Amino acid sequence: MPVSEFDIIQRYFREGAGKIIGAGTSAVRCGIGDDCAVLSLAVGHELLLSVDTLVESVHFPVNYSSALLARRALAVCASDLAASGASPLAFTLALTLPTVDEDWLSAFSVSLADAAAEFGMVLVGGDTTRGPLCLSLQVMGSAPAGQALLRNGAQVGDVIYVSGSLGDASAALAFLNTEPAELQADQADLLARYHAPTPRLVLGQNLRNLATAAIDISDGLAADLGHILKASGVAGVVRVQDLPLSAALLNHGSALDAALSGGDDYELCFTVPASRRADVAFLSASLDLALSEIGYIEVGHGLRCIDAQNKVYSPANGYQHF
Amino acid sequence: MPVSEFDIIQRYFREGAGKIIGAGTSAVRCGIGDDCAVLSLAVGHELLLSVDTLVESVHFPVNYSSALLARRALAVCASDLAASGASPLAFTLALTLPTVDEDWLSAFSVSLADAAAEFGMVLVGGDTTRGPLCLSLQVMGSAPAGQALLRNGAQVGDVIYVSGSLGDASAALAFLNTEPAELQADQADLLARYHAPTPRLVLGQNLRNLATAAIDISDGLAADLGHILKASGVAGVVRVQDLPLSAALLNHGSALDAALSGGDDYELCFTVPASRRADVAFLSASLDLALSEIGYIEVGHGLRCIDAQNKVYSPANGYQHF
Repeated sequence: MPVSEFDIIQRYFREGAGKIIGAGTSAVRCGIGDDCAVLSLAVGHELLLSVDTLVESVHFPVNYSSALLARRALAVCASDLAASGASPLAFTLALTLPTVDEDWLSAFSVSLADAAAEFGMVLVGGDTTRGPLCLSLQVMGSAPAGQALLRNGAQVGDVIYVSGSLGDASAALAFLNTEPAELQADQADLLARYHAPTPRLVLGQNLRNLATAAIDISDGLAADLGHILKASGVAGVVRVQDLPLSAALLNHGSALDAALSGGDDYELCFTVPASRRADVAFLSASLDLALSEIGYIEVGHGLRCIDAQNKVYSPANGYQHF
Repeated sequence: MPVSEFDIIQRYFREGAGKIIGAGTSAVRCGIGDDCAVLSLAVGHELLLSVDTLVESVHFPVNYSSALLARRALAVCASDLAASGASPLAFTLALTLPTVDEDWLSAFSVSLADAAAEFGMVLVGGDTTRGPLCLSLQVMGSAPAGQALLRNGAQVGDVIYVSGSLGDASAALAFLNTEPAELQADQADLLARYHAPTPRLVLGQNLRNLATAAIDISDGLAADLGHILKASGVAGVVRVQDLPLSAALLNHGSALDAALSGGDDYELCFTVPASRRADVAFLSASLDLALSEIGYIEVGHGLRCIDAQNKVYSPANGYQHF
């Protein structure tokens, strides 16, 4: 007897394997299994939401591990909540599968449940369809009214920060198909950044009353910081010698270009009034997370990268989907 | 120069063509173009949400008109809001395209904007990716806390209603590829039900304090009413002679089977205490929409269909995606 859509939802997303449904969460009044899910927000909070689609052979390789795919998909999508300063609540999953492979689904749902627990989210709905392998996730979170971090608040006089280190995930693309046994330790570190990015959710929530603008770095620092600059109507200067580069990345060639133009890092880039540097330092210490000042906002438009001699440094372009 | 993802969003969804972004809507604090959209709900309201995916050659034919696709996708998804009694607010669109076809996109976005205006919704976010043609829409609405219509409230003593007429859309599948010029008038009527279903949004909102359970008919009456019965822990009896059948459907063969087992109608099926029949009649008149009493709830489990002689009538199975 063929496995029905209802069976898949029941076995892999409601009762068995991952058990991702969080009926016990106070925000979720009704989860999977009705026409709509029902979410209740805290009084005075707004809903923040974002959608990401991952298509096989475009956003992840053919035959990519379903366990890695589940975690990576949710992390990538949750990263948008982080960039907006949202407290994560729930997500939906639109999953399109060419065939019903129970091993694939089982590993997928266990990993998705783990990631959901790690990020503090529950699955509240979705759709399971037949077709070329593709996932669309919508994440939902909340923030006190008016406190969501947007891209358009950067001001002249602000300084620019990034979290963590940049360029690791894009450097890993070169050995995505290398057999694990043949990887050097550095390469394994870089690959982990690609396979299992960390959405900076706690950082984002702590930036609500500190950052003037924020974005997550999915398409590369130059492209994503460019969005802040454009939305805010200002110019930005990045000192390339101040970019946070991991030891592993420095061992693997064009580290600066990877840091400026490589996507998939999912670190946050944000602007803060220069007068509040001490608050950022305190936050960095309390979160045990590197927050590096890499430049500043000035009058004008566009991004200028400079080196230690104040000469212009030209990065390659950010990734474009078409 | 190739058209980028940013260009597509700007040209077809933000500024040009359809102009679907509803920045003027008070519920939308931030629409497309930031990491997250920000929605504000009315005080005392809950968020209701649902996701639907449509895959080419599974849920719609290859080379299907992009204008029809846009309207149908939003209608199908909004129908879940109707079934839950939600007031529609906003939606997101995850659109995966094999190539950038500007004529296709232009017709798609104009039609999507028209449908969004018709249903009272605005586009607040999405993702545009490259890959096999596929759409995932998430619709969001709201209802006063505790008033969302669920599937699990049907009670013994309730009567069962459906809106509109049933079976038309599934009967249309037989001539989906017939040239328009060769269609009979009846066939054109049925095709319109398939191509342009009407989400029963106003009906759903009016059922909030009247229906004990509700669902929209996407997989066929027998299958979808079965979900209400199972979730409510009751049995249901449908009198097949009371099913609302259109004149067009009666001209085209097995009308009863189409009405019981055919999907894609997107009418609502709901249960109401027998004591409130007069309220349903009043609602039907005020909405100018047929609301037909087709059966009743009794103790037990499962669905029984009977004919005018009280003999059991066996419908074919509802559509299964796998």
